[in-house]
Amino acid sequence: HAALVRLRHNKAFEFFVIAVIIISALEIGAKTYDLSDTALSITHYLDVFITVFFLIEILIRFIAEEKKRDFFKSAWNVFDTAVVVISLIPINESEMALLARLIRIFRVLRMISIVPELRVLINSLMVALPRLGYVVLLMFIIFYIYAAIGSFLFNDINPVLWGNIAISMLTLFRVMTFEDWTDIQYETMDVYPMSWLFYMTFIFFTAFAFLNMVIGIVVGVMEE
Amino acid sequence: HAALVRLRHNKAFEFFVIAVIIISALEIGAKTYDLSDTALSITHYLDVFITVFFLIEILIRFIAEEKKRDFFKSAWNVFDTAVVVISLIPINESEMALLARLIRIFRVLRMISIVPELRVLINSLMVALPRLGYVVLLMFIIFYIYAAIGSFLFNDINPVLWGNIAISMLTLFRVMTFEDWTDIQYETMDVYPMSWLFYMTFIFFTAFAFLNMVIGIVVGVMEE
Amino acid sequence: HAALVRLRHNKAFEFFVIAVIIISALEIGAKTYDLSDTALSITHYLDVFITVFFLIEILIRFIAEEKKRDFFKSAWNVFDTAVVVISLIPINESEMALLARLIRIFRVLRMISIVPELRVLINSLMVALPRLGYVVLLMFIIFYIYAAIGSFLFNDINPVLWGNIAISMLTLFRVMTFEDWTDIQYETMDVYPMSWLFYMTFIFFTAFAFLNMVIGIVVGVMEE
Amino acid sequence: HAALVRLRHNKAFEFFVIAVIIISALEIGAKTYDLSDTALSITHYLDVFITVFFLIEILIRFIAEEKKRDFFKSAWNVFDTAVVVISLIPINESEMALLARLIRIFRVLRMISIVPELRVLINSLMVALPRLGYVVLLMFIIFYIYAAIGSFLFNDINPVLWGNIAISMLTLFRVMTFEDWTDIQYETMDVYPMSWLFYMTFIFFTAFAFLNMVIGIVVGVMEE
Ligand code: NA
Ligand code: NA
Repeated sequence: HAALVRLRHNKAFEFFVIAVIIISALEIGAKTYDLSDTALSITHYLDVFITVFFLIEILIRFIAEEKKRDFFKSAWNVFDTAVVVISLIPINESEMALLARLIRIFRVLRMISIVPELRVLINSLMVALPRLGYVVLLMFIIFYIYAAIGSFLFNDINPVLWGNIAISMLTLFRVMTFEDWTDIQYETMDVYPMSWLFYMTFIFFTAFAFLNMVIGIVVGVMEE
Repeated sequence: HAALVRLRHNKAFEFFVIAVIIISALEIGAKTYDLSDTALSITHYLDVFITVFFLIEILIRFIAEEKKRDFFKSAWNVFDTAVVVISLIPINESEMALLARLIRIFRVLRMISIVPELRVLINSLMVALPRLGYVVLLMFIIFYIYAAIGSFLFNDINPVLWGNIAISMLTLFRVMTFEDWTDIQYETMDVYPMSWLFYMTFIFFTAFAFLNMVIGIVVGVMEE
Repeated sequence: HAALVRLRHNKAFEFFVIAVIIISALEIGAKTYDLSDTALSITHYLDVFITVFFLIEILIRFIAEEKKRDFFKSAWNVFDTAVVVISLIPINESEMALLARLIRIFRVLRMISIVPELRVLINSLMVALPRLGYVVLLMFIIFYIYAAIGSFLFNDINPVLWGNIAISMLTLFRVMTFEDWTDIQYETMDVYPMSWLFYMTFIFFTAFAFLNMVIGIVVGVMEE
Repeated sequence: HAALVRLRHNKAFEFFVIAVIIISALEIGAKTYDLSDTALSITHYLDVFITVFFLIEILIRFIAEEKKRDFFKSAWNVFDTAVVVISLIPINESEMALLARLIRIFRVLRMISIVPELRVLINSLMVALPRLGYVVLLMFIIFYIYAAIGSFLFNDINPVLWGNIAISMLTLFRVMTFEDWTDIQYETMDVYPMSWLFYMTFIFFTAFAFLNMVIGIVVGVMEE
């Protein structure tokens, strides 16, 4: 047990884990190319090796933990265990091949849980999130109201963009990113010449809410 | 009367009001989809229920208020009352159906008046607005001058974009959002090869004024 | 003379001047529409009135000034005088009509010189400018180098976009605003598959320089 | 030797060096236009003059340096020497003409090494870079994971955009700049109607990481 604890805190072991994560990331990247049969069988054995290695690594960390209960108190440990357990589920059927691949991609996220600096970064981002809660709610209300108005007024003009409230919200997100938004505007202005007011006020309100969000984060970070 | 005051400050009652607002929002969203006859008649009875409930809720708050005059001193109370009163106006004719729908959408805004945190957020935004007054005026002057120049010079090239000063201001807003602005530029550069100066200086001035606006808000928030 | 000094500092007189500037702005806007003959002759008489009024107003201010030499020490007075003098030049020929119109547009800028708050705003912007000098120079060097590289490499691919260093700089400004930049990239990637590096590094450097510019202004404003 | 030291610190000499750099920049710009034979031969002699002048200038600075070892301790001196040495390599063959031209463009970068204010600016940018290291790594992980998912799911829909992980990352950078991103989204939504989630979350995560990067720089600059 003491040997495992020592291994767990060994720098060389940590670097080896990072190396395996990088190899697993590269393997995922390689699979997006057309591979020769040899390369494919290599990735197959690599998959098995990575799965087994990650299983052993998580077991080492679990055994090295003094109080077993504390292990799952860390969200990162829960995340790591989930990634390992899910990738153990045997998915051999060809129809599920896509799902199996997608699950393996999440292994790359282990990069975040193993590098302490990235973990700190994510934690600090998480701390900033609740602060944003109400601005996000306000923005959602703005989106919802404009999507409802857009859906009622412009549905007959272009149902692909304004067919229902969900599609309208997607269209409004597009307007918010300024992506081909004037085409949408010109189309509705042919029927409702004053509809530029709809877009202008929407852009004004969302830009204002977004600015408030950014300033809120900046001020929050400053205070710390 | 004491019972009403107690009800008005009751947490459960407040959550019930929020629930009704959310239901009213969901109903508005549902109406943007093709509904079955059953669903339609449900929304009809729901509409009546929400209207009556909002009327009762505002009456409770009005009666629970100690000094009746103070009630309308709060802009939020005025807003809530206006939303309720307007939705009481009987609009049954089919031609006005759209208007009736639009009015009901504003009920969702009651979400802002009932959640204290959102009310605080809106108030803080309102405080920042007058500070921006003169930068907005400056930006309007920049838009007006460039729109006049654009209208005089480019009207013959593309009247759809530069037909009069109002259309030109809309086109300049499009340029400011960088939406397909180079197409507009290339078109005028065919006739006036130096017209890129028009766009460059416009983008420079508006970006500069906008940046000043953002910094003004940040500094203002910091001071508080 | 004392009467003129009193008039010059009279609030009502100042508001009347602002009113005439607004009327002059509205007249310029009106001219971008197709006007009836009556309206056209009204604008003609209005033009004469505004020109004469501005001439009188500047004379009043000049006479009301104690030391005549100090009058032209103020950049705003020089600007106002220039606007008035230029609009006095008789341009009656139809060929020059456009120029005459353009000159009159600059009268709207008098709005800035007459409203003290706008004058303060412009002054504070002017103060921030020299601070940006070297970042702008750095950005120009980045543009120049990339435009030279783009012109040498991509000239044969699309001379409309990369014909010479001036056109290339315009194209790079377009890339910087993210306006249809991937079309430009895909076109050059057909010949030079690695040319995405050209765009990526350019976007990275300019974004970095721009960010530095913004931060420079923010920090500068904060210090004050 | 004393004379060289004096020359090296002579203001007039420094301005002359800057003048030669500007001339060398203008010459590079001129070469992107169609030049007459006379102009071409002028640029040829100019090239020789600039090369020789830069060689002499660097020798003067090297000789004027007290401790020869310290000369190459300055990254700017190494950079200047590299630029001069590389431009000395005789590249006369027509096939390499492009490479020769490209190398000469980097002479313009000497503008940065000779103007002290630009050198300070670049140094301060360099200081900010390591601070960004982990945010950039986090963003790369986000890009990598989304590119892998995009490549697995959307490869059959449009291999030009999602053919392999490298192409997918380029496509995602395009999405991040909001350039025609909805066309990409609509295309995949035809097959996977929920794929808007893919884009929304990607935009959310990258925007959040980018914001963090900006705030990190601002806070870093403030602390100094
Ligand atoms: Na865009
Ligand atoms: Na676009």
